[in-house]
Amino acid sequence: MKVTAVDPFALALDLRSGALQPYTSRTQRHLSDMRGAFRDGAALEDLVRGGDPLVYEVLQYDLPEETGQLICCTTVLYPGTVGAEYYMTKGHYHLVRETAEIYLGLSGQGYLLLMTEDGRSWAEPLGPGTVAYVPPAWAHRSVNVGEEPLVFFAVYPGQAGHDYGTIERTGFAQRVLRGPQGPVLA
Amino acid sequence: MKVTAVDPFALALDLRSGALQPYTSRTQRHLSDMRGAFRDGAALEDLVRGGDPLVYEVLQYDLPEETGQLICCTTVLYPGTVGAEYYMTKGHYHLVRETAEIYLGLSGQGYLLLMTEDGRSWAEPLGPGTVAYVPPAWAHRSVNVGEEPLVFFAVYPGQAGHDYGTIERTGFAQRVLRGPQGPVLA
Repeated sequence: MKVTAVDPFALALDLRSGALQPYTSRTQRHLSDMRGAFRDGAALEDLVRGGDPLVYEVLQYDLPEETGQLICCTTVLYPGTVGAEYYMTKGHYHLVRETAEIYLGLSGQGYLLLMTEDGRSWAEPLGPGTVAYVPPAWAHRSVNVGEEPLVFFAVYPGQAGHDYGTIERTGFAQRVLRGPQGPVLA
Repeated sequence: MKVTAVDPFALALDLRSGALQPYTSRTQRHLSDMRGAFRDGAALEDLVRGGDPLVYEVLQYDLPEETGQLICCTTVLYPGTVGAEYYMTKGHYHLVRETAEIYLGLSGQGYLLLMTEDGRSWAEPLGPGTVAYVPPAWAHRSVNVGEEPLVFFAVYPGQAGHDYGTIERTGFAQRVLRGPQGPVLA
């Protein structure tokens, strides 16, 4: 196995806001980037016309996408709903299915939704100090059910890659909706 | 590639003390486990006779040691010195050299020392919110230069393994000593 030589380095992570300095890529997802993900498409279009809010952003320090490297990033998922459905990330499988990911919740309250291609489904509450394990082969999406940003730090193997297309086609097994007594998994 | 099926799970990490619940293994290193690591062997033996203090402990949630899995652990490195040399971990290479590790500092102040088998040497300050990258092939040892425990969370690839023997034979390229104006790299 050959892996690219990289010098040691350090980043500064704000353990509450998730701010990562320096980062080399910043991915922003507005509601218009998430058409098809939410159950209420008409509500989504109303919100897009009303200003197309930012749903989440991911700050990452990029490294070679190779087995043996580890890539880390911070996700800030803003609070909000589309109809009754809480803001969430697009969700993805890893392109290399046989790769895990570790989430560390820093602030806010939400869920990590997981599913497999053979029909299993899972939901883990995600809050400050939650270390959640995304096992190999499990798609993962996070959902913010609180009033402040849901912030988490994540580490994944360099070779993992991202497959968003499968979730765009199949959707996710569970949704998280605002109910009269709080969040409801549906 | 075949990887063992694991269900999703979550652990609770105290973002200040590093307490991890649940964990499946707890490794404790007393000074008597670290003979040969410190420059002042006579000072070490005095301390061993005086009660053999605990230098550090590692709480880990074990998973199959396979490519694709990620293993996480918390290290609590207590404050203290052996002669002028600050408490430190044993330090190791990964058995599979081509594997990285990510450290996240939670509390305390110290250094992450790194070295390669071809003679390079590096020191990164490690404190709350420091994300330090241990690149593939770099041995790593942490040193507590503060008055409180140095606590960090770490993630490494399942296949990495630990090679302590090489460091026991070669020692580490740098030491961190208490000087009149604070820590000195020597």
